[in-house]
Amino acid sequence: MNFRIVLFILSRLLAIESLIISISGLVSLFYGDIDFLYFFYSSGIALAVSILVFPFVKNTKRSLGKREGYLVVSLTWVVFSIFGALPFYISGAIPSYTDAFFETMSGFTTTGASILNDIESLSHGLLFWRSITQWLGGMGIIVMAIAILPILGIGGMQLFIAEVPGPTPDKLHPRIKGTAKRLWGIYIILTLMETLLLMLGNMDWFDALNHSFTTMATGGYSTKQMSVAYYNSPYIEYIISLFMFLAGMNFTLAFFALKLKWKKIFRNEEFKWYAIGTLLFTLIIVFFLVIQTGLGIEPAFRQSLFQVVSILTTTGYATADYMLWPSFVVVIIFMLMFIGGSAGSTGGGPKVLRIMLLLKNSYFEFKRLIHPKAIIPVRFNKRAVDPKIIANIQAFLVVYIILFVIGTISMSAIGLDLDSSMGAVIACLGNIGPGIADVGPANNFYNIPDVGKWILSFAMLVGRLELFTVLVLFTPHYWKK
Amino acid sequence: MNFRIVLFILSRLLAIESLIISISGLVSLFYGDIDFLYFFYSSGIALAVSILVFPFVKNTKRSLGKREGYLVVSLTWVVFSIFGALPFYISGAIPSYTDAFFETMSGFTTTGASILNDIESLSHGLLFWRSITQWLGGMGIIVMAIAILPILGIGGMQLFIAEVPGPTPDKLHPRIKGTAKRLWGIYIILTLMETLLLMLGNMDWFDALNHSFTTMATGGYSTKQMSVAYYNSPYIEYIISLFMFLAGMNFTLAFFALKLKWKKIFRNEEFKWYAIGTLLFTLIIVFFLVIQTGLGIEPAFRQSLFQVVSILTTTGYATADYMLWPSFVVVIIFMLMFIGGSAGSTGGGPKVLRIMLLLKNSYFEFKRLIHPKAIIPVRFNKRAVDPKIIANIQAFLVVYIILFVIGTISMSAIGLDLDSSMGAVIACLGNIGPGIADVGPANNFYNIPDVGKWILSFAMLVGRLELFTVLVLFTPHYWKK
Repeated sequence: MNFRIVLFILSRLLAIESLIISISGLVSLFYGDIDFLYFFYSSGIALAVSILVFPFVKNTKRSLGKREGYLVVSLTWVVFSIFGALPFYISGAIPSYTDAFFETMSGFTTTGASILNDIESLSHGLLFWRSITQWLGGMGIIVMAIAILPILGIGGMQLFIAEVPGPTPDKLHPRIKGTAKRLWGIYIILTLMETLLLMLGNMDWFDALNHSFTTMATGGYSTKQMSVAYYNSPYIEYIISLFMFLAGMNFTLAFFALKLKWKKIFRNEEFKWYAIGTLLFTLIIVFFLVIQTGLGIEPAFRQSLFQVVSILTTTGYATADYMLWPSFVVVIIFMLMFIGGSAGSTGGGPKVLRIMLLLKNSYFEFKRLIHPKAIIPVRFNKRAVDPKIIANIQAFLVVYIILFVIGTISMSAIGLDLDSSMGAVIACLGNIGPGIADVGPANNFYNIPDVGKWILSFAMLVGRLELFTVLVLFTPHYWKK
Repeated sequence: MNFRIVLFILSRLLAIESLIISISGLVSLFYGDIDFLYFFYSSGIALAVSILVFPFVKNTKRSLGKREGYLVVSLTWVVFSIFGALPFYISGAIPSYTDAFFETMSGFTTTGASILNDIESLSHGLLFWRSITQWLGGMGIIVMAIAILPILGIGGMQLFIAEVPGPTPDKLHPRIKGTAKRLWGIYIILTLMETLLLMLGNMDWFDALNHSFTTMATGGYSTKQMSVAYYNSPYIEYIISLFMFLAGMNFTLAFFALKLKWKKIFRNEEFKWYAIGTLLFTLIIVFFLVIQTGLGIEPAFRQSLFQVVSILTTTGYATADYMLWPSFVVVIIFMLMFIGGSAGSTGGGPKVLRIMLLLKNSYFEFKRLIHPKAIIPVRFNKRAVDPKIIANIQAFLVVYIILFVIGTISMSAIGLDLDSSMGAVIACLGNIGPGIADVGPANNFYNIPDVGKWILSFAMLVGRLELFTVLVLFTPHYWKK
């Protein structure tokens, strides 16, 4: 294990974080908020640590193996959250460090679960910093999903390799840089487009930018306590629905979009399932809302679309308290929490790709039962998938369920009821934000005991980094030579 | 497809059912209940159908292939339930045929979910028939699990083949008869032993026999509305706990017990997990009950043991309304509903064996991540398990979850809340009996709308027959030549 390269990378990333905290301080200064100094304190602490570490690691070999990869990725999110919590904590906006850490981890993991009871009381600088943690987290996820995870060999992510004009599965390759930069370019362009479109809907530029940051990251932090419901604008709701949907797509498909190769997108099997699934569940909910609550068809469609896309992409914005909808709709929404966005998007959860391959494989299992000697592979985009990858994905699902069960039991042990326990865990493990029952969209995570907040912070981290990246660090195999 | 052999077998089994309905009529006659005639009507109808079918099928080839196997097994449970419902329906004890069918399917699948609001009002004959549906169901399951499923190649059941002094995996073999007879011998002996021990606890012989029938079947039908709580006897609770535990063990281990080869039992990995798991969850619940409810240690241990064994073996007797216990305990019990008894027992659910292998495989997945080129097999009783069997088991779990999700959504669509929907589905799919919330141990299934009862009846059937046996009949592959 080359710890020095790990520290080297972390210290450089920490310097970048310090810079962005400073920029948030400038936002505060620009708005004349008195808390701008706290940003520079926080930024200074981060920079100081980064600089103090640097002399110990500067002369390190630049080779980064798989083992170091898991550690760097996991620690990046932890270190960013530890220092990213400082502006909230030092300024006194969030008096408890546990709460500040939870809020920051929820940001960098693009979860969106919040402990804040009065978001509007935050200064512009803090609101900006809160949104930008998600936007940075989203950037990190894109490069991780497309460049790093396939090499680390985690649960089916290898399937990307054939798709992406990027690295080959051996060592971290200079081409990653190129791939990442192009994907980030698309990410930035989409963010700016959304900002512009939201401003056309009479949102001020600050709110528009913040919501665009957290939409593209499928994060879901809003600058308003009421979330998107605050604006009470069908136009804004449709625009955000559209961009949430785009953010939940595989970003590599955007390459094809730029080259106007639309067929390539519409032939992508995961995209088809994602799009058809979104539409299908929206229509089912519209039907029940219209029949059982007497809502008009357009508002029912708009609210249903918004909520389905928000949950499926794991963004977590709210325009309505779905806990007040008919029980059937609550159940559908709860089930959607176990799917997640497309692989290669900023969305969390198990991902459409994995669910799709597992469903297909289960269907073929019946065929295999009748023809036990035939070899019946699962196909993705018409190519046979290696049974080992299917086995990886199945193991991923099993670990996901184990974590969900352990998490739910832990939450109930500290006093939450069954629904709230399940809701809190899936909301964090799936990086969604709001859950059900006591942590539904009309509530937040403030009342959860501290130990629960630490457990849920860990759940966010593990869920965000595709489980294995973090969990492998806790196995003896990882540390054996 | 040789439909005639399927009909031939069904007609012979129906004649047996007719006989046992008659015997239940004799019980009614013996107790001087006026409803004995209805049993003979029901028995007559079953016999008449059996005889009417017979001429069409008597000259059939006696070869029974895999395809016919799935159909025979599935239809046996359906036909038995259709005709087995007659005594309840014709006598007027259960005025709705839907309810009568649900109650009977719940019997033959050893589920124990009931629609009866006043069990004590039933005649002795009906109580006897109700219990014996479970006992017969248990007999069917033993022979199915040990002799038929391994040949049909369903989700990991092949692992038995090496263990059981029974058939080889090609055609239904005459040796099955011998194996089945010996296992049934053990089943009958244990039933009689329990009856005797319950009578020593001052239970009258009728109740003792009925409870023994439904204990050994892990069915859970009681002759009392209050279930085992009625007797208010620690001795009876311990005895029933013991026999539920035995009924949830792999019956083939009883061979070793008879030959006094105890080591073979204690070295069996599934048994170890089953025994240790039972003890562990019991102690966890005892701890919470003592701390949070102030219950004494002995009653807490007794109630906790009884409930853990009852749920884990999928029996479903109740000595306490666990919905009134602390939220944490409810969550633990709910999670236990997803495990089930040992493979080769009369217990339902996914089974300890499958859960154990999946947990082990997930753990090894981390090792595989670090050493991607090494071949790291999962071992069961120190032998490497074919990765194909692990894949089978993973597919089984995925299908189990899909059914649970579809079932929960269906139940919520007809008006149940989330917890009741999940509870009703897992209680039936896992062949447990009582679930949580509106179908918890203090309630029953009476208030569920008819369509829900048919869906749940189907869930019991599918769960009881290890999913694939039934579901394969609904795939095009099965019917293609």
